[in-house]
Amino acid sequence: MAEPLRIALAGLGTVGAGLIRLVEANGELIARRAGRPIEIVAVSARDRNKDRGVNLSLYTWEDDMTALAARPDVDVVVELVGGADGPALTTARNALGGGKGLVTANKAMIAHHGLELAQLAEAKQVPLGFEAAVAGGIPVIKGLREGAAGNRIERIFGILNGTCNYILSTMEQSGRDFGEVLAEAQALGYAESDPTFDIEGIDAAHKLAILAALAFGARIDFPAVDVSGISRVRAADIAQAEALGYRIRLIGTAEAGEPGTLFQRVQPCLVPLHHPLAAVEGPTNAVVAEGNFAGRLLFQGAGAGDGPTASAVAADLIDIARGHAGTPFSVPAAELDALARADAGHRTNRAYIRFVVADRPGVLAEIAAAMRDGGVSIESLIQQGRPEEGGEVLIAMVTHEGREENVAQALALLEGSDSLAEPPLVMRLIG
Amino acid sequence: MAEPLRIALAGLGTVGAGLIRLVEANGELIARRAGRPIEIVAVSARDRNKDRGVNLSLYTWEDDMTALAARPDVDVVVELVGGADGPALTTARNALGGGKGLVTANKAMIAHHGLELAQLAEAKQVPLGFEAAVAGGIPVIKGLREGAAGNRIERIFGILNGTCNYILSTMEQSGRDFGEVLAEAQALGYAESDPTFDIEGIDAAHKLAILAALAFGARIDFPAVDVSGISRVRAADIAQAEALGYRIRLIGTAEAGEPGTLFQRVQPCLVPLHHPLAAVEGPTNAVVAEGNFAGRLLFQGAGAGDGPTASAVAADLIDIARGHAGTPFSVPAAELDALARADAGHRTNRAYIRFVVADRPGVLAEIAAAMRDGGVSIESLIQQGRPEEGGEVLIAMVTHEGREENVAQALALLEGSDSLAEPPLVMRLIG
Repeated sequence: MAEPLRIALAGLGTVGAGLIRLVEANGELIARRAGRPIEIVAVSARDRNKDRGVNLSLYTWEDDMTALAARPDVDVVVELVGGADGPALTTARNALGGGKGLVTANKAMIAHHGLELAQLAEAKQVPLGFEAAVAGGIPVIKGLREGAAGNRIERIFGILNGTCNYILSTMEQSGRDFGEVLAEAQALGYAESDPTFDIEGIDAAHKLAILAALAFGARIDFPAVDVSGISRVRAADIAQAEALGYRIRLIGTAEAGEPGTLFQRVQPCLVPLHHPLAAVEGPTNAVVAEGNFAGRLLFQGAGAGDGPTASAVAADLIDIARGHAGTPFSVPAAELDALARADAGHRTNRAYIRFVVADRPGVLAEIAAAMRDGGVSIESLIQQGRPEEGGEVLIAMVTHEGREENVAQALALLEGSDSLAEPPLVMRLIG
Repeated sequence: MAEPLRIALAGLGTVGAGLIRLVEANGELIARRAGRPIEIVAVSARDRNKDRGVNLSLYTWEDDMTALAARPDVDVVVELVGGADGPALTTARNALGGGKGLVTANKAMIAHHGLELAQLAEAKQVPLGFEAAVAGGIPVIKGLREGAAGNRIERIFGILNGTCNYILSTMEQSGRDFGEVLAEAQALGYAESDPTFDIEGIDAAHKLAILAALAFGARIDFPAVDVSGISRVRAADIAQAEALGYRIRLIGTAEAGEPGTLFQRVQPCLVPLHHPLAAVEGPTNAVVAEGNFAGRLLFQGAGAGDGPTASAVAADLIDIARGHAGTPFSVPAAELDALARADAGHRTNRAYIRFVVADRPGVLAEIAAAMRDGGVSIESLIQQGRPEEGGEVLIAMVTHEGREENVAQALALLEGSDSLAEPPLVMRLIG
């Protein structure tokens, strides 16, 4: 059997420990499949003495993470530290710059610095793998870069954040409100103590930007993602959606806009009950890619967790061991298109718009007039009978198919109105 | 840009014509992604003059299909003729034996001769790709061989035949009986004029045997698949299943049995309504792979058709163009385990058993006694009120969790009984 692929592990959180367990449990199988063993040579993390449930005495310990990339007995550095910058980025640059492969689960770093790292990897002719950065254990990077490589991708969309999906599907099943379910998710470890990145859609936007770059052969452009999260979704919205035959899911979507432009958005959406994404519950992720020959491909599985993420890291390592690591973003970094942010105003869809209003006469007339003046045609309107806590009343409506710019115009007319207790919540209907 | 990958196309049915259209439409994109163009050099089919909607004058025509493999200007032969043996197998052997790569969509040929062809490919050190042989455009071969390569696969199961799924989901939606829906599927082109391979589960079994070999590192063993089809499923069964909260799907399952054995079965099953496979409708395929680290991965998409199948062929060609074609069955053919057929008798599950009986006193007592004597515990029993056409009465039951051998014993006691108008139909409950 050929020489082992020797790896160094930067970061020993749950995923790092999971990778050690994976290599211990499945090492023999991997060696048969890859034609050579994968061997962990050295590890580094902040705290040497923390109990991680794995035997670290088998590996050389480096106090200084940056020393991993300098070791002559290492072929690939696996970066599992996290964070867009800081030690993760330093480790990544050191590894690639020093002519070693890099495998990472770090979506924030790839979303912000993926182009630079890809250029560095290509210049040094070393592999860069980030399967684990998107959708946990689901091989969706591979699915796009290789499985669907014969297709022009027309659209990619999906559920990219397990925390949000857990919260939304739990709200749906229990009828409870956002804050309560979030607190429970935090207690169960499904949400971080600071949940902002997840619930405000930023984590999903990181992943969407990576998928979009791959799918559309574009330079990664995270700042161009139009992002909103789920923190303003109320139990009443979920009940209304259900009454209309929909479920609410946080959906990331990327598709080509006018020539030279790319549309990227993360937003809670209403998904029809019979749609495959409506059936996705709990901390599961699911990605749909629409190819001009393959049609609609769905990839679904655990979106996070030590085992699934370690599985995706291992897939990248096995590709490298086999000598099959490809160009990071499918086409060479120098050939990636710089696409402008698409104008969303001309997009047409149906929208669910929910207002929180003062319980007094004339409010509905004011809203209806704004819709009329903005050119928004209302398909159905639901005024909730029972006021929410604090005496607020919810008014929800579904629009006919129309341009997003009309909705924006109508809502602009209501801006500053003291009839509204908070800004309206707009969610698009899918399918 | 590097030299093109030059291919010859054997067979110009819908998939062959689809591949020509794909290369024409997406050729430039593919060249950027693969780092070199894919160029169709020569083609061959039975009838040169048939209108296929593509311009064949661009390619050299060979009347003799076997001449394709002999052409010095060809790197890879794409076999799209079909059939386990005959010209397809000759073409495949000629190509690989002559030191050319082979890409095929031929599930029957791989199911029967996959081991021999893999050995030949490995001996000649040429690539052999069969992504298109399983589940149309869904990159599930790649998902198993590469995406989940870090996992021990514990089970693989799914919907592998689009024709059966179209028929079952249409029966479900329309309440019509099997024969009527089959005739409609034939008229629509979703079923062949001789539908035996599809409706009796043989096509699904071909695909299952291929997936099982890959997932379990086993020598492909199609004859060991326990196969039954959907032709005996009645509208009444679908209605009963629905009343119990289930849908009927033709499911292929493979999992490890006792050490050294492999369980492979294709059988209509009752799938709970909330299960992802219950939501799969029409001619869609879906495969679930359970890895010991990745957990449950679901791959879903169009299971057949010219575009999706051409997309899978293109994926194999792009891998080859990139120099990333791997070992056909992941581990070298010489290392594949020869696994025995697992004894299904010790498997435990709940079963739906449906009898067609004569409408006379004592029949139910006879069946109940056989169940008791076989050791089968009945959870619920449904005797249909209204007789079927011809005065037959249906009796359906769901058993408690129990061994399959007990069900077999009970049914053996009823064999030959003139109370039964046809052999009982047994379908397992999933999940």
